[in-house]
Amino acid sequence: MDNFYLRINKTITAISTPLGIGAISIIRISGNKSIKIIKNIFIKKNKKKIKKINPNIVNYGFINYKNEIIDQVIIIFFKKPKSYTGENLIEIYCHGSIYIQKKIINLIIKNGANLAKNGEFSFRAFLNKKINLLQAESILDLINSKNKIYHKIAINNLINSKISNIILKIQNVILDILSFIEIKLDFLEENINIKNKYILNKIKYVEKKLKILIKSFKINKFINNGFFVSIIGPVNSGKSTLMNVLINENKSIVTNIPGTTRDIVEGKKIINNFKFYFFDTAGLRKTKSYIENIGIKKTLKKILESNIIFYVFDILLLKKKKYIYKIIKFLKKIKIKKKNILLIANKIDINNINFKKKKINNYNIIFISAKKKIGINNILNYLNKKIPNKIIKKNILINNIRHFEELKKSLKYIKKFKKNFLNKVPFEFIYIDLKYSIKYLNNINGNNINNNDILNNIFSKFCIGK
Amino acid sequence: MDNFYLRINKTITAISTPLGIGAISIIRISGNKSIKIIKNIFIKKNKKKIKKINPNIVNYGFINYKNEIIDQVIIIFFKKPKSYTGENLIEIYCHGSIYIQKKIINLIIKNGANLAKNGEFSFRAFLNKKINLLQAESILDLINSKNKIYHKIAINNLINSKISNIILKIQNVILDILSFIEIKLDFLEENINIKNKYILNKIKYVEKKLKILIKSFKINKFINNGFFVSIIGPVNSGKSTLMNVLINENKSIVTNIPGTTRDIVEGKKIINNFKFYFFDTAGLRKTKSYIENIGIKKTLKKILESNIIFYVFDILLLKKKKYIYKIIKFLKKIKIKKKNILLIANKIDINNINFKKKKINNYNIIFISAKKKIGINNILNYLNKKIPNKIIKKNILINNIRHFEELKKSLKYIKKFKKNFLNKVPFEFIYIDLKYSIKYLNNINGNNINNNDILNNIFSKFCIGK
Repeated sequence: MDNFYLRINKTITAISTPLGIGAISIIRISGNKSIKIIKNIFIKKNKKKIKKINPNIVNYGFINYKNEIIDQVIIIFFKKPKSYTGENLIEIYCHGSIYIQKKIINLIIKNGANLAKNGEFSFRAFLNKKINLLQAESILDLINSKNKIYHKIAINNLINSKISNIILKIQNVILDILSFIEIKLDFLEENINIKNKYILNKIKYVEKKLKILIKSFKINKFINNGFFVSIIGPVNSGKSTLMNVLINENKSIVTNIPGTTRDIVEGKKIINNFKFYFFDTAGLRKTKSYIENIGIKKTLKKILESNIIFYVFDILLLKKKKYIYKIIKFLKKIKIKKKNILLIANKIDINNINFKKKKINNYNIIFISAKKKIGINNILNYLNKKIPNKIIKKNILINNIRHFEELKKSLKYIKKFKKNFLNKVPFEFIYIDLKYSIKYLNNINGNNINNNDILNNIFSKFCIGK
Repeated sequence: MDNFYLRINKTITAISTPLGIGAISIIRISGNKSIKIIKNIFIKKNKKKIKKINPNIVNYGFINYKNEIIDQVIIIFFKKPKSYTGENLIEIYCHGSIYIQKKIINLIIKNGANLAKNGEFSFRAFLNKKINLLQAESILDLINSKNKIYHKIAINNLINSKISNIILKIQNVILDILSFIEIKLDFLEENINIKNKYILNKIKYVEKKLKILIKSFKINKFINNGFFVSIIGPVNSGKSTLMNVLINENKSIVTNIPGTTRDIVEGKKIINNFKFYFFDTAGLRKTKSYIENIGIKKTLKKILESNIIFYVFDILLLKKKKYIYKIIKFLKKIKIKKKNILLIANKIDINNINFKKKKINNYNIIFISAKKKIGINNILNYLNKKIPNKIIKKNILINNIRHFEELKKSLKYIKKFKKNFLNKVPFEFIYIDLKYSIKYLNNINGNNINNNDILNNIFSKFCIGK
């Protein structure tokens, strides 16, 4: 990376398409010598040297060196600063043979270029202010994006500078406070209470915004891994039937013999691009069957790994207050938040009873018939609400651990400032914390960044040719 | 392949860069609907639709569908007939993420294109007479070329239609004969002898040219596998020293104890892009050593697999006529042509004797000192002469088995014609053979070809996107 700075005056080259054999490959040359090099190795269709290369148009011809034609190619010249790197940049579109790619790269190097290192083109784009650091990382995210959500976040950060703008906004509020303090330092005699209130409001705002961003980082776990939903409940309550309905296929063996499901059966359903994994578990009951007991133990273990619990039971049981009390007692023991547990009263097609409440002991309850597919939508709606749609839709998800760490550091200094501020520590001793807070936010966009480790860490993750 | 014809009015699309993750990927759309499709899914930098797309220039913008931006891209429009396929062709340069590539391809398909099959772009180029069949195959060869020789042949066939032109020339000579015969059929009374001589000369010319092409196919074996050179001779004659000098490294263990080399040691040297593999063998002598005898057996086996034999011996032995007689007797037993066996009289630095002849019993002899590196250039010159340089330099190498087969068929009918012609079979019965001969030559360039099997066989070998 130190090299990137030292190499800044050198012309660099690399293969920019995925490595391998294909119809076409792209070779890039960026830097001062690009035009000189291409004039040395490129001849037009009429086999004459090219004198002037106009930018942004297709030039047909051959890569030719010492009267040996290497390939029939197209070249395009992107004139600085209107190129990806902000430098003069040439792209050669050649046949995707490994021999040709190697040969052309060697020829370019022979004519004065250096082989680009991973991320060196993007580093130059960053240095020439074509992109900020967050955009550079978005390009990386974009290239590596494997699903719709991450792709959307990356493209939004790249094109609309979504997170960038949010962070700039937060920084501006901190700057407001800082300039306000400076005024305050001058005119201490003025109405202190009003001013203190103003500062406190601003600082609370910043704290809240930073916390939202930091919290959003945790959502990545769900985007990557999905939600785990355990379907539990007494034997023969219709758990497997419900599971099959939810995932629209017959995966669990459905019978009316109690204790049919012993292994935990997994089913997947995608709702709004989020994966939900359902685990149909062995029914919970006291049994002497050794195998069934292993099943029950597995169920209890699965419960602990779940994000959501469906407790399924025959609606008839609602009549037995003792039984309901037992359920509640059991559920309270599980270390899962009430809002993530759903009571599902099944079999309303055969055993309908009069029960209107939407909650029992603050646990949500839904009435269904798994067999007749009644009330299933209510379950899907419940699941849909678990998806952090707002954050996803607004694309304000932090999915980069570096940003997460910088945000946490920034928040730390905001909190420190707030605490001291509330304790009436004089401003001259604490305003530096606000400056630290801004500094860490600056690191995210890369403004005035001069930390080689950070830059190195970012650009080394790029593939070659980018 | 039948589908290719049926699909000719459809617009096709594919990823044209090697599959995988990279900085940039190229997606192609070819066919009537290309422009309509790109207008549906592409917006300009200012996020407005593109009204008119000028050919051959870079268009910056986004792939966008139903207000969702998929990627920031560049597109280029190649207007028919000035495009690879001869149809309207769009190339999209997008970020090399698998998600994005898939997404864009799906979008293009959703908007009316079909996924292209392997070689379908090139098939259309062939059908629209942008390239002939031999050129299509050259593109394939170019993409797959792994060394300089094949690369050169492929690029020459693609750009200069080298083989194409040679075949056209041969065809024209056959056509000459045919038209001459037609005249002859009309004016039989004229000077028959002169005319027969004219025909015979022409037919001999064709036969010769076809034979050269057919023979050239065998050279591929050497291009691919290189030449095998066994270094044999009595123990302690300096075979290992010679081998080390030839490959410029110490691979063989050199001592002055007779019988040091037991395993066959392999060394490689590249001369004029041709690989020469040297096999330093166990010295030939009668021995009771079990291990040494295995070595000698290996040597004899190696000799049979060799293209060239170096028989190395101490120059002093030239004084012993009996010994030389024994060598010649041994060499005659080997089923290798005399010109491919080289006698090497070694150790001229210590044992110089007066011997001026350049041949013994028609075997070439070279005098060297392996130790002092005297006379090595003569050996390298000898090897260099083994390289079919003329054929390579003129790029008239047939390296495609299909062409080889067509040429053999063509030659078969030429020979048949010649035989009948010499036997004075009337022309009306035999001129059809000349037509057959032309037909098989036509198959190579693909003129008037309507053999689906041939076309299928060729284009199915292409990678997708070409």
